[in-house]
Amino acid sequence: MTITANDPKRKTWLEVAKDSDFPIQNIPFGVFLTRDDIITIGTRIGDFAIDLGALHQLGYFDDIPLTDDIFLQDTLNDFIADGRKTWRAVRNKIAEIFDENNSTLKENKEHQRIVLFTLDEIEMQLPVQVGDYTDFYSSKEHATNVGELFRGKEDALLPNWLHVPVAYHGRSSSIIPSGIPVHRPKGQKMPKGSESPIFGPSRLVDFELEMAFITTAANPLGEPISVEDAEEYIFGMVLFNDWSARDIQKWEYVPLGPFLAKNFASSVSPWIVTLDALEPFRTEGPKPVKKQLDYLQSKGKKTFDINLEVAIQPEGKEETVVSKSNFKYLYWNMSQQLAHHTINGCPVNSGDMMGSGTISGPDESSFGSMLELSWNGEKPIKLNDGEDRKFINDNDTVIIRGHCENKSVRIGFGEVSTKLLPVYKA
Amino acid sequence: MTITANDPKRKTWLEVAKDSDFPIQNIPFGVFLTRDDIITIGTRIGDFAIDLGALHQLGYFDDIPLTDDIFLQDTLNDFIADGRKTWRAVRNKIAEIFDENNSTLKENKEHQRIVLFTLDEIEMQLPVQVGDYTDFYSSKEHATNVGELFRGKEDALLPNWLHVPVAYHGRSSSIIPSGIPVHRPKGQKMPKGSESPIFGPSRLVDFELEMAFITTAANPLGEPISVEDAEEYIFGMVLFNDWSARDIQKWEYVPLGPFLAKNFASSVSPWIVTLDALEPFRTEGPKPVKKQLDYLQSKGKKTFDINLEVAIQPEGKEETVVSKSNFKYLYWNMSQQLAHHTINGCPVNSGDMMGSGTISGPDESSFGSMLELSWNGEKPIKLNDGEDRKFINDNDTVIIRGHCENKSVRIGFGEVSTKLLPVYKA
Repeated sequence: MTITANDPKRKTWLEVAKDSDFPIQNIPFGVFLTRDDIITIGTRIGDFAIDLGALHQLGYFDDIPLTDDIFLQDTLNDFIADGRKTWRAVRNKIAEIFDENNSTLKENKEHQRIVLFTLDEIEMQLPVQVGDYTDFYSSKEHATNVGELFRGKEDALLPNWLHVPVAYHGRSSSIIPSGIPVHRPKGQKMPKGSESPIFGPSRLVDFELEMAFITTAANPLGEPISVEDAEEYIFGMVLFNDWSARDIQKWEYVPLGPFLAKNFASSVSPWIVTLDALEPFRTEGPKPVKKQLDYLQSKGKKTFDINLEVAIQPEGKEETVVSKSNFKYLYWNMSQQLAHHTINGCPVNSGDMMGSGTISGPDESSFGSMLELSWNGEKPIKLNDGEDRKFINDNDTVIIRGHCENKSVRIGFGEVSTKLLPVYKA
Repeated sequence: MTITANDPKRKTWLEVAKDSDFPIQNIPFGVFLTRDDIITIGTRIGDFAIDLGALHQLGYFDDIPLTDDIFLQDTLNDFIADGRKTWRAVRNKIAEIFDENNSTLKENKEHQRIVLFTLDEIEMQLPVQVGDYTDFYSSKEHATNVGELFRGKEDALLPNWLHVPVAYHGRSSSIIPSGIPVHRPKGQKMPKGSESPIFGPSRLVDFELEMAFITTAANPLGEPISVEDAEEYIFGMVLFNDWSARDIQKWEYVPLGPFLAKNFASSVSPWIVTLDALEPFRTEGPKPVKKQLDYLQSKGKKTFDINLEVAIQPEGKEETVVSKSNFKYLYWNMSQQLAHHTINGCPVNSGDMMGSGTISGPDESSFGSMLELSWNGEKPIKLNDGEDRKFINDNDTVIIRGHCENKSVRIGFGEVSTKLLPVYKA
């Protein structure tokens, strides 16, 4: 099926700002609470949220085989489970409904009243119930920086890194949508030179600039997915902030990996941008430095040119952009990640989320965490208000944004914005 | 509310073998497919499976506030979310219904025909939809053995181990009930002296003798649970086999922990034995070797005396018990584990599963994995048929059993039995 929704020439009868992340060529999917306190699946064009549940009830999707309640859900999991053919048909149909040359909904004010919401009338929810969340570690620059900081320059990049798309399992229960604040976590830390650990608030709370992809049901227990087939099972992507407490991490992470240093929160942008919408922005990733095993060898343009930035906004002040990076810097692409994840037969389900790992670029201005940007506090970052930041302060808001752009179209992710509250007090 | 269901003097009108794991004092909870292809929540007494959905429809739980469909579910998650008061009331009521002095169901053959099944008429399912699965590493003996094997005797127990109930996140999607076979996984391995990794079947597939506890919804994002309150949120326990591929593990696990070496399968016994049923078997765990931080200090009998054993059964042959251990050997108890898990505000939901980590005891016969029992292959284990085992062979079945016993009652878990199939071929 052709992705007619991607036609760069299409215009919509809805008003869309020129620099919007959500032109009619985007058509992402999300879940929101409406002004009538109903949870529904929707999409977004410009600054309008569109109730797909209502559109379906009004018959606008009648020529696509969909169950009646497919959009009347509080997560996208069932819709995602329907597979790529359905996603594509629905996205094409939405493009058609809102095309400036289609007068059906354009001239039906009554229907518009039912299906269109302004952004201040809705409350975005987590778009999927995350069955399992895996976090990769796929930026060579990030792995090298962190390795140097934690283990010294000699052992910076570990021997397995160029062969294995290293990953670990994260915590699904603490994945939250943009807008939900997070408390500074408490935990065990081992001060330098001390005999035993102390307990208290983390002093080194950090963001991690990541993206995540969301899968459909891919494989039963025992059966791998090939690197060639992997994209068939990727629904779309979101921005992802993998909050981290570096002092807790340093003490706890040997030998089984990060645990409490990470699982207090990870925040995501609420609109899932489909892989289909990202088609025009395909690009090749970095060339392999070492020969990769057969099951990981990937050909062609398997990654995407997505501009990313991170801003810190102290309370009541303007924000400062502290990093500009790009998704294409990642050494391991999503197809390789999914092939690796399933090579042992591990089953992947609809709604699973796979984080990229921190996306650091080649130079300092593109590092994806404060750990790297401030070089573990040695080089504080200057904010626009003149203040310094080594890590994240109480009441700072961290905002990650991302978008793709070419001469004819801009496809964006909006943002994930999360405020760090002081330590929780009972 | 008194746990009247635990009355050791109670007898049932159902036939129960003397050495059954499931006397009327047990009353575990599980999910099964009936002979009529209906999925329901049930319990077990002796060798009878009891359809609680049907019992509820027949009015047997009318004096307990329960929703109509609470047992007509394909997982226990909603029932578990109802909390300890409900679990206790339902368990007490079931004991009453099957008490030999209660003639209501005893003399109603028609109702019995509807609610009672023999074990060969049902198919046990995974009892919960596991939202998140965490695996602890709480046996000092196991951590010491593995540390010695992977890093040498000097660094065997890492500096953080006596302070931190070390844990990592596991994969929920590959948790399977007893009876489902597992394929030997393929993956990357780094042969000694080699320059680069090779790809192929794991040669070192292992079991891990564990137990796991299942939680109810415990805390919202940001709010810790205290060690004193923790048991309030523990529904019950199962036997847990955390399948592991040691060669894959060794190459991939630094720095983020085990991933593909573990997530190809973990198998569980299908009946969840409630913490209430285990009350008579409370005991104290090992004395702390080092002072523990305040949030981890636990008083009194916070663990349970549960006898555990592992048997290997080669295809078509008799089984050999290769390990006998006990849950009480664990250094960190479940209350400490849950307090640690949430101290940073990580939310715990209904149906989450927390593995204990391999439960090794003080002597060689109580080690909980082949890695330890065969000392990484140096000392093969002799099976009853004369064959040797260093790790698990294709078509071996691994069976874990567990039970508590005192003078008046035996409360058991049944078993988790899993066959290792050869590598998957497409």
